[in-house]
Amino acid sequence: MPHIQDQREDRGIALDRVGVKSLRHPFVVRDRAGRERAVTATVTAFVSLPAHARATHMSAFLTALSRHSGPLDRDSLRSLLQEIREGLDAPSAGLEIAFPFFVERTAPSTGSRSAMACDARLEAALDSTFRLTTCVRVPVMTLCPCSVSAPGVPGLAQRGYVSVSVRSERAVSVEDLVDLVERCASAPVRPLLRAEDERALLASALARPLFVEDVVRNAVQALDGAGGIEWYEIEAENLESAHDHSVFASCERGR
Amino acid sequence: MPHIQDQREDRGIALDRVGVKSLRHPFVVRDRAGRERAVTATVTAFVSLPAHARATHMSAFLTALSRHSGPLDRDSLRSLLQEIREGLDAPSAGLEIAFPFFVERTAPSTGSRSAMACDARLEAALDSTFRLTTCVRVPVMTLCPCSVSAPGVPGLAQRGYVSVSVRSERAVSVEDLVDLVERCASAPVRPLLRAEDERALLASALARPLFVEDVVRNAVQALDGAGGIEWYEIEAENLESAHDHSVFASCERGR
Amino acid sequence: MPHIQDQREDRGIALDRVGVKSLRHPFVVRDRAGRERAVTATVTAFVSLPAHARATHMSAFLTALSRHSGPLDRDSLRSLLQEIREGLDAPSAGLEIAFPFFVERTAPSTGSRSAMACDARLEAALDSTFRLTTCVRVPVMTLCPCSVSAPGVPGLAQRGYVSVSVRSERAVSVEDLVDLVERCASAPVRPLLRAEDERALLASALARPLFVEDVVRNAVQALDGAGGIEWYEIEAENLESAHDHSVFASCERGR
Amino acid sequence: MPHIQDQREDRGIALDRVGVKSLRHPFVVRDRAGRERAVTATVTAFVSLPAHARATHMSAFLTALSRHSGPLDRDSLRSLLQEIREGLDAPSAGLEIAFPFFVERTAPSTGSRSAMACDARLEAALDSTFRLTTCVRVPVMTLCPCSVSAPGVPGLAQRGYVSVSVRSERAVSVEDLVDLVERCASAPVRPLLRAEDERALLASALARPLFVEDVVRNAVQALDGAGGIEWYEIEAENLESAHDHSVFASCERGR
Repeated sequence: MPHIQDQREDRGIALDRVGVKSLRHPFVVRDRAGRERAVTATVTAFVSLPAHARATHMSAFLTALSRHSGPLDRDSLRSLLQEIREGLDAPSAGLEIAFPFFVERTAPSTGSRSAMACDARLEAALDSTFRLTTCVRVPVMTLCPCSVSAPGVPGLAQRGYVSVSVRSERAVSVEDLVDLVERCASAPVRPLLRAEDERALLASALARPLFVEDVVRNAVQALDGAGGIEWYEIEAENLESAHDHSVFASCERGR
Repeated sequence: MPHIQDQREDRGIALDRVGVKSLRHPFVVRDRAGRERAVTATVTAFVSLPAHARATHMSAFLTALSRHSGPLDRDSLRSLLQEIREGLDAPSAGLEIAFPFFVERTAPSTGSRSAMACDARLEAALDSTFRLTTCVRVPVMTLCPCSVSAPGVPGLAQRGYVSVSVRSERAVSVEDLVDLVERCASAPVRPLLRAEDERALLASALARPLFVEDVVRNAVQALDGAGGIEWYEIEAENLESAHDHSVFASCERGR
Repeated sequence: MPHIQDQREDRGIALDRVGVKSLRHPFVVRDRAGRERAVTATVTAFVSLPAHARATHMSAFLTALSRHSGPLDRDSLRSLLQEIREGLDAPSAGLEIAFPFFVERTAPSTGSRSAMACDARLEAALDSTFRLTTCVRVPVMTLCPCSVSAPGVPGLAQRGYVSVSVRSERAVSVEDLVDLVERCASAPVRPLLRAEDERALLASALARPLFVEDVVRNAVQALDGAGGIEWYEIEAENLESAHDHSVFASCERGR
Repeated sequence: MPHIQDQREDRGIALDRVGVKSLRHPFVVRDRAGRERAVTATVTAFVSLPAHARATHMSAFLTALSRHSGPLDRDSLRSLLQEIREGLDAPSAGLEIAFPFFVERTAPSTGSRSAMACDARLEAALDSTFRLTTCVRVPVMTLCPCSVSAPGVPGLAQRGYVSVSVRSERAVSVEDLVDLVERCASAPVRPLLRAEDERALLASALARPLFVEDVVRNAVQALDGAGGIEWYEIEAENLESAHDHSVFASCERGR
């Protein structure tokens, strides 16, 4: 029985993306030290659809994902996309794999250790070339420069998130990106802070008051200095302590 | 043709709630000044189901909601529940209507006005009696008491949310609850703050450093002093500036 | 006292966007019939930041929004962006205003009326020119063509969402876009359906089984035929009934 | 230096819960086969606060969680709560640990294997006794009984979620609960289904059309027959295919 998806379509309309999204799937990633880690990812997988094809075969994405084993890296992502593209006879294929990733952190004064969650995302695309983008979203602290300009007023601290997406020729580790991002803010945040740690963190922030604009420019400088990066996008967002909204700044380079 | 929902069910299992949820529906509410306001609500509506009935008629909830007009208040909510309960021949009926509600606020120094969104929710229940619970969730600022105990360290501010649910004999206005809640925190937050307003707000917060525990106890005292309240629940949550998690405190009275 | 934001910045890094986000603000919009409707919007507002400026003045966004009154339309959005851009001395400015919008719908058999929520979004941008993009996300029903190809098997229905973004020279009404989108699916969905309405809807869907790919191509044809549209993007997503994930198809034209 | 949290509080107001929430933390759980699995959990941890204490020490929760290692089970949860309660000198302590959990599933016709995500949650409470509640939320398919009662109309399928919370004397495995829940619906859902699998699933559903009310009663019977269960709560929710809202039914027993 021929598949209905394979019926001829004659309206001359090619589609950019057809595929699956909001799919949760287990993967293994390797951390910077080479250890394997199980992660729970949310996946978007798609191909482009030529004008003559009515529809794609959605089960092929699940077949390819379910067959895949071994750590997610540049090579295995490329293989996964090749399998999807060939199985579906498609001009191009893409994958977005988002997952929480823990980095071990130490408190600044007591050295107490705790695991801090960051949001990581791998975006892989295959047409005539293969491109891999690595993305992280890292919680940080910023201290408003205005607030420390007047005497007798406490600095206004807030939690922020810095998101960085990087496309490069060689692999970039999630942990390296998290480290880079943390150095761009007034101070890092930590899950476990005793009273003296919190004071040390605040003292660091007080010594380095920053606007979201400053945080983004710090990240631009850090990424421009890193070498081998083709494209990047940075966004810093502050959950304002004096407002019920966020402020943000963003910058894209290399498109 | 008899409805399948009305088939006899003989397993002897009554159900607590059957109904609709995640439904968006437009309502009109009256503010404290008596003006009508259009709000976009998310609605849960339900009845209890006796053991002998196979299922309820879900369209009856939509029929009742679609017929309803005029401002939501104690009387119209009771009528709506009576219509639902009678139409479905049910022992009891309930409604939860959640909507964003704007309160006008002025900045502490410049007096600049802006509209601040709070989350309101009305919970109405009808069995042998009618009960109405009014709930608000209000953004506030808190300043950590530990952070101001050491010299030379800025106070650590953070945005928080205080949620209060109140069941009372007479109607409680959403605006009165928001006012009450705002007075329990270190300082309020405002959408529009110029530089001098932000400094004034910080100075207020610095003069009144509070833990989430203090905020909840302030609200307990305020509600105990309000009179006519049968039951309440309070939760204060801080979006910590030095962590990527929240701290919270909660208290329920009068059950 | 000079503002710290106005300090000279000498790293030569211009920023694409600096502004506020996740801000809830009340607006008035005019529906197709000319009636005013109060909506609760979530707002992103931003300007570009030249390389020489350290930071923007975030309160200026709130000042402009708080001053704005009257219905949101092409002219008032342009004025709002002009005020923001001039107030902040910025090369460009942008606004994204998202809000739930109700359309009145009738059930196919009984004609029962109910209010159906769609998600609308206006995106306005001002640099040397002014551009307005109107976006809607509309719930629909699709019936899988594979499922009706075998005898004795029920058609597999699922809820879907079709999102359309349109940039055009003349204003496009949200309601016109919702109407256009509803005609592209197997059948519409409705808040209130009695038993006979549900059967009528299912019969319609059975007569028009569609993949997400078909839905997008239907929308491409409809938009290509509408005239005056410079750019559009379409995405159809199905909340699969047989899976806990979605399938989707998308197409962008005119960039 | 005495801690400010330990200051005497004299308003006579004890608090039900003080603690941390929205915290992401890595845990290890053991599956039914005894294998260890790394999971990413979202954690709420709290103690009750006596009237005389001003505040608790929030860092103690992080210290206890960061020290904890080894699989989460009845014994290790009790130990964790004991450590928290003793460290904070509190009358009672509680933990809620929510995480996605994958179960391996096979397609009904081709036997193709794929990993299906369910949402699991462990709720542990310690005062004079220790109580453990195990919760799962499982995606399923239901087919509306009304839709198959008329000839010539396709059955109306929809995706649903069944949530079950169980408190019992002996440990209940997450997988056993997922298995139990799947048997209560019209048919299960699967990540990977080829065309013949989808037809087989639909045929199963067509042979067992169920309302949400039926699904809950099936679960009541299954749990009543399981033995050793002290308390449970069940909710079935359908993402209606013909509406943009859900219908639901729920039942609680044993309080």
